[in-house]
Amino acid sequence: MQPRSASQPENPQPLHERFYRFILELQDKICRSLETFESSHSFREDAWQHPGGGGGRSRILEQGSVWEKAGVNISRVEGELPDSMKQTLGTAESRFLAEGISLVIHPRNPYVPTVHANFRYFELYDVEGTLKDRWFGGGSDLTPYYLDPADATHFHRSFKEACDRFDPDYYPRFKQQCDAYFVNRHRGMEARGIGGIFYDYLRPADEAAARTLLAFSEANGQAFLDAYLPIARRQADRPYGEREQFWQQYRRGRYVEFNLIHDRGTLFGLKTQGRIESILMSLPPVARWVYDYQPEAGSPEAELLEQLRPRDWI
Amino acid sequence: MQPRSASQPENPQPLHERFYRFILELQDKICRSLETFESSHSFREDAWQHPGGGGGRSRILEQGSVWEKAGVNISRVEGELPDSMKQTLGTAESRFLAEGISLVIHPRNPYVPTVHANFRYFELYDVEGTLKDRWFGGGSDLTPYYLDPADATHFHRSFKEACDRFDPDYYPRFKQQCDAYFVNRHRGMEARGIGGIFYDYLRPADEAAARTLLAFSEANGQAFLDAYLPIARRQADRPYGEREQFWQQYRRGRYVEFNLIHDRGTLFGLKTQGRIESILMSLPPVARWVYDYQPEAGSPEAELLEQLRPRDWI
Repeated sequence: MQPRSASQPENPQPLHERFYRFILELQDKICRSLETFESSHSFREDAWQHPGGGGGRSRILEQGSVWEKAGVNISRVEGELPDSMKQTLGTAESRFLAEGISLVIHPRNPYVPTVHANFRYFELYDVEGTLKDRWFGGGSDLTPYYLDPADATHFHRSFKEACDRFDPDYYPRFKQQCDAYFVNRHRGMEARGIGGIFYDYLRPADEAAARTLLAFSEANGQAFLDAYLPIARRQADRPYGEREQFWQQYRRGRYVEFNLIHDRGTLFGLKTQGRIESILMSLPPVARWVYDYQPEAGSPEAELLEQLRPRDWI
Repeated sequence: MQPRSASQPENPQPLHERFYRFILELQDKICRSLETFESSHSFREDAWQHPGGGGGRSRILEQGSVWEKAGVNISRVEGELPDSMKQTLGTAESRFLAEGISLVIHPRNPYVPTVHANFRYFELYDVEGTLKDRWFGGGSDLTPYYLDPADATHFHRSFKEACDRFDPDYYPRFKQQCDAYFVNRHRGMEARGIGGIFYDYLRPADEAAARTLLAFSEANGQAFLDAYLPIARRQADRPYGEREQFWQQYRRGRYVEFNLIHDRGTLFGLKTQGRIESILMSLPPVARWVYDYQPEAGSPEAELLEQLRPRDWI
C-alpha cells in the first residue's frame, strides 16, 4: 500500500529505509532459523528507545539445549555526533544515523564455534540536515574452541562466493581486514578466531552503487546462514565432557578481553549512550581465567592455538 | 652488612630502594597470612623480566579451599616513558621507574568479599637521568557479594586509623577518591564495591616528607591485613549454595568490566608492555553474564545493589 516502493526505482524509498527493512527481515530470518534447533526455547524480545532518537529491538535466547546464549539485535539510532566520534571519524559533521544488525551466538557444545556477524549502514549530516557522507560496513567471523578444518573452509567459502558475485577483490581484501581486526594485540597478536570477512567505509558513488551495496549486504546476510548453520548442525551432537567445557570457558575469557579492550563497535556503543544490556549481550554466558594456563603440547587444545593464525582456508 | 641502611638517616638508601624492600616484605607477609587459611595449598611464584629493565615476582594461589584465586604481585619496572603515558601524565620527561605491590583476592565462599590493594611509587627522570618528579599512590577497596554492614565499617575504620596517624584530612579525601574511581560508569555509575581508600600523586616536598610517605605506605600495608583477614575469618565457613555462587559469578562479571574498560593500572600495564599474565591475574576465576538480570525485589542480592552507593560506613 506504500506509494513509494523498491519496485519503483524512479522514486525509491530512501536508502536508510531500505537498509532498515533488510535488517528487520534478517533478524526475523536468523531467529527463526536458530529456533529450529531448539524444542522448547525461543527468543525473547526487548524494544528500547535511544535518548537522542530511534531505538532498537534486542532478541535473546539463553540456556537453550543447543544455544547457551544467542543475541540478535537490530538498532536504528540517530543523534548528535559525540566529540570523541568526530575525532575518530575525522569529520566536523554534526548528526548521524546508524542502522545495524549485530549478533553473537555462543553454543553450549564446545565443538560448535561461537559466531559473530554485523551489518551496518551509517549516514552523516551537517547542521542544516543535509546528507554529507554515508557508508556500509559489516562482516562475520568464527571463533572455534576445537576446529574441524573443513568447517573453516566451508565458512570462508560461503562468504567468498557472496563477495565474488560483486567484486573479485572483495573477499581477499575483506578476509585480510578481518584477520587484522579480530586480534588480541595485548596477547602477542593472538587471533580471536579463524576470521571471515570484515569491511567498513564502503561509500556508494551514486544511487546505483548504493543499490548494489545494499544487495551486497543482503547477500552477506544470506551467506551468514549458509556459512554457520551447517557447521552447527554437524557438530551439535558431538559428545563432550568437563575438559572440553573448561577449555571453552577459558577461551571465552579471550572473547571478553577482545570485546571490552579492542572492539570498536562496543566502544561506539558505550560512547553514544547505547543500551548497555544490548551492547554487552555479546559477552559469553561463562568465562574463566586461569593464571598462565598452557594446554598440553600435542593436545587438541594446543592444536587450536596453532590454527589461530591467519591462513588461506580455501 | 650493607654500609648504607635505614638506621643511618644521614646516609640513607635511595627512596626507591627502601620502597622496594617494603613491597618485598609486604608480599611475603601477605602470602604467609593467606596461606594460614589453607591446609594444602600454597602460593607458586614466577619471576619475570621487563624488556625495558627490571621485572617482577608474581605469586598466585588457585583453587584453594578458602581462596579460589589470589594473586599478589610486586614489580619494579623502568624504561622509556611511552608517548601515550607522557600525554596522560602531562610531562615531557623521558624515563620512569615504577615500583608497586598489587593484589586481588577472590575467595571461594560468596559471603567473603573480593579485595584489592595496591601500593606504588613512581619516579620520573629527564634525558640526563636527573630525578625530576616522584610520587606515591595506593589504596584498597572491598567488593562484597553479600554484605554484613559491620564488615564494611571494620574495613573502612582500619584504613581511617592508619590515615589519621598521618593527617586527619587523608581518610575523608582518599575515601572520596576511592568512591569516585571504582565506578562502572557505563552501568549508570554503579560502584564496583563499597570502596576503601585510593590516593595518587602524593609528592614529597623533601627527604623528611619522603620518609613520612614511605611510613604511610607501610601503615596502609599493615592496615590491609588488619582490615581484611578478620572479615575472611568471620565469613569463610558460612554455608552457601548454587544461588549464592551464581550471584558471585554474575557480580564478578562487573569486576571484569571495570578492570578491562576503566582501570588505569591495567591500561598502564598494557601500554608499557607489562607481563600480561601478571596484569590480568586480577580477573576472577569465573565470571558470568546473563542478559538484563535483575535480582528479586527485597532479596539479599537486591539489598547489595542498594549498598553499592557511596556512604559513610563509619
